[in-house]
Amino acid sequence: MKSFINYDQNSDFSIHNIPFGVGVFSNEYIACCTRIGDMVIDLATLYDYGFFDEIEGINENVFEAYTLNEFIELEKPVTNAVRLKIQQLLDENSKLANDEKTIEECFFNADQVRMMMPVHIPNYTDFYSSIEHATNVGKMFRDPANALLPNWKHLPVGYHGRASSIVVSGTDIIRPKGQMKPADVESPIFGPCKQLDFELEMAFIVNKNTEMGESISTAEAEDAIFGMVIFNDWSARDIQSWEYVPLGPFLGKNFGSSISPWVVTLEALMPFRTESPKQEPEVLDYLKFEGDKNFDINLEVYIKPENGTENLISKSNYKFMYWNMTQQLAHHTINGCNVEVGDMYASGTISGENPNSFGSMLELTWRGTNPLKLKDGEERKFINDNDTVIMKGFAEKDGMRVGFGEVSGKILPAN
Amino acid sequence: MKSFINYDQNSDFSIHNIPFGVGVFSNEYIACCTRIGDMVIDLATLYDYGFFDEIEGINENVFEAYTLNEFIELEKPVTNAVRLKIQQLLDENSKLANDEKTIEECFFNADQVRMMMPVHIPNYTDFYSSIEHATNVGKMFRDPANALLPNWKHLPVGYHGRASSIVVSGTDIIRPKGQMKPADVESPIFGPCKQLDFELEMAFIVNKNTEMGESISTAEAEDAIFGMVIFNDWSARDIQSWEYVPLGPFLGKNFGSSISPWVVTLEALMPFRTESPKQEPEVLDYLKFEGDKNFDINLEVYIKPENGTENLISKSNYKFMYWNMTQQLAHHTINGCNVEVGDMYASGTISGENPNSFGSMLELTWRGTNPLKLKDGEERKFINDNDTVIMKGFAEKDGMRVGFGEVSGKILPAN
Repeated sequence: MKSFINYDQNSDFSIHNIPFGVGVFSNEYIACCTRIGDMVIDLATLYDYGFFDEIEGINENVFEAYTLNEFIELEKPVTNAVRLKIQQLLDENSKLANDEKTIEECFFNADQVRMMMPVHIPNYTDFYSSIEHATNVGKMFRDPANALLPNWKHLPVGYHGRASSIVVSGTDIIRPKGQMKPADVESPIFGPCKQLDFELEMAFIVNKNTEMGESISTAEAEDAIFGMVIFNDWSARDIQSWEYVPLGPFLGKNFGSSISPWVVTLEALMPFRTESPKQEPEVLDYLKFEGDKNFDINLEVYIKPENGTENLISKSNYKFMYWNMTQQLAHHTINGCNVEVGDMYASGTISGENPNSFGSMLELTWRGTNPLKLKDGEERKFINDNDTVIMKGFAEKDGMRVGFGEVSGKILPAN
Repeated sequence: MKSFINYDQNSDFSIHNIPFGVGVFSNEYIACCTRIGDMVIDLATLYDYGFFDEIEGINENVFEAYTLNEFIELEKPVTNAVRLKIQQLLDENSKLANDEKTIEECFFNADQVRMMMPVHIPNYTDFYSSIEHATNVGKMFRDPANALLPNWKHLPVGYHGRASSIVVSGTDIIRPKGQMKPADVESPIFGPCKQLDFELEMAFIVNKNTEMGESISTAEAEDAIFGMVIFNDWSARDIQSWEYVPLGPFLGKNFGSSISPWVVTLEALMPFRTESPKQEPEVLDYLKFEGDKNFDINLEVYIKPENGTENLISKSNYKFMYWNMTQQLAHHTINGCNVEVGDMYASGTISGENPNSFGSMLELTWRGTNPLKLKDGEERKFINDNDTVIMKGFAEKDGMRVGFGEVSGKILPAN
């Protein structure tokens, strides 16, 4: 496949990708869109011009919307057909290649388009599915000899997070204030978080509504997943460690999470399927699955100090996940919990075995005991005010590249 | 105050109440409504007839809606004015008393109206604010000598719950299946929950959207609270106890929660203000508050076995809460977490000191060791299939009664 739109061979947005997002175009017009190379394409106007007329099941302009929810609710038969149609339209032999009027009206340089939150998120869950991350945290905060808790290998541990404070890449995050209790004081103190961290995660988005009492099996799960984004689960470690017993993380997390603006479909990721780490002991029947259900997605984290340049501080990979998405969704619904279109399910911090692949400052600096050296003589135990944290993700194979772009967020000083 | 509508002196829906809800009327028409005695009043038609014309700030028929969200978003100056106007309209000396046409069109017997979820709930948080409940749980599951964890008296512990599975009173709940690990087996087993429980709670509903980074102080909190409902936080104890470390309750809770359909405004509860338990040690500044911020609301729990009658099994009171609503909301937002109109914040199980006032089967039967005796020779350690759990709540003082009606839910066998 080759497109009439030229793009760099390292572009995340090759013709093999065709992600979906929501953009504010230069004239303040908002619409669902896709992207190839550096061009963003207004799908609402393409729809009005009849380019999707032959696709069954799409009977109104769902792209004329502030979120992708209406589109993704059409489920795979329609959303896949739309994605394939866009791929055909962008092919070098497509009629569209010479349709100057449509290109003029629907194709925009990416720097002219401000990306918005791609979906409305009714419910957000965060898992804890990287064995390396869970082990590192267990070693630091609990017992190095028994780092994993007894349930960890039997079920994908997860918890409900706050949907209201998930924001799109580029949104500043204000350093949270709160209670913390340093080991050397008697009573808790109040103030701005001193141990602000990121968590490198990915998240998937569900395309259907289920009824209470209904479950989604591992075999059915991929049909219920529209696509994925990169997810930065900002964390206030000092607030979190004081508050989290016995009911889990709360204010240490809910001040903000950031996502990348382009939703990469599961179909675009299919060429990058890979096997998962072996699960031992054997899991219960409802968590068993067939075939390769993991994906080989390279992940990178950068810190950019104010007036500084990007420092690559971690190289991880989504394939390290012990529990895969089909298991996460099957577990989440085995008790009859209903899911909703746009629900977001994050992976938990994705760490690898190698210390350079750890997905949080907590792990990279081993709780601040081993600061990271950055360029220009700077070092970091945690994230400073005015630092920007950037996460990038892409899959690559046989000259084909499918990427997520980036999720970026700058920390502003506490109010 | 006396209304031209006659009602029993024990009615929860006296002229002092004027709660808000959403009803499906006999002709399948849906509208926001209020209630007095056994009469439900269609507010959308009242609006169309001009009864709210003189109220500033209400410029469209927000009652013609499937939820109260648009109405409550108008905030106190408007919602209070509407409530007072309804109270005037229902007065025995009101012109409406003789307006047969309007009464014919807008007033319905409660049994002709099916109540729906009163609000769309963007986010749901559950607190853990009864000291008796937290102490009981700590004694059973952790250390009787140190039942409360070190953070408990310093902050209102809470966690995010699942909004999608909150349902209105009368909705059946299917017994969840899941993983559990009885003490006497090596590996976890799978099956229907064997320790199904209720939790007697109340919840408040927020009337505004805040920006990320913004906080709501204890002094501002009551202006941001529209009203309250009774909340049954169904719990699968065996699933919960295996899954909940280290990130908190998940599948043990998210299969369903039930709420009462009528939202009682904070204004209706003002005559029933009362002081809170003394907080010792002193709390941090952002958790301090002035005046009486608790409410004297009687709470009752009943079990009704299939083909049986109601058994009163607990008598508790909202006034037992150690942490009040203004503290809960101030704590939740001190880190800049944004709130949304319709957000629901539940209290956590409300237990008193007396064993008859415990708010869950876990506590009432002390983890099943001391079964409850019901009528007809029945007994219960936890909730059986086809049992209905009913919770009632009301405040009473100087001949004035303001109540919530009930939240009722029947447990169906696992799928």
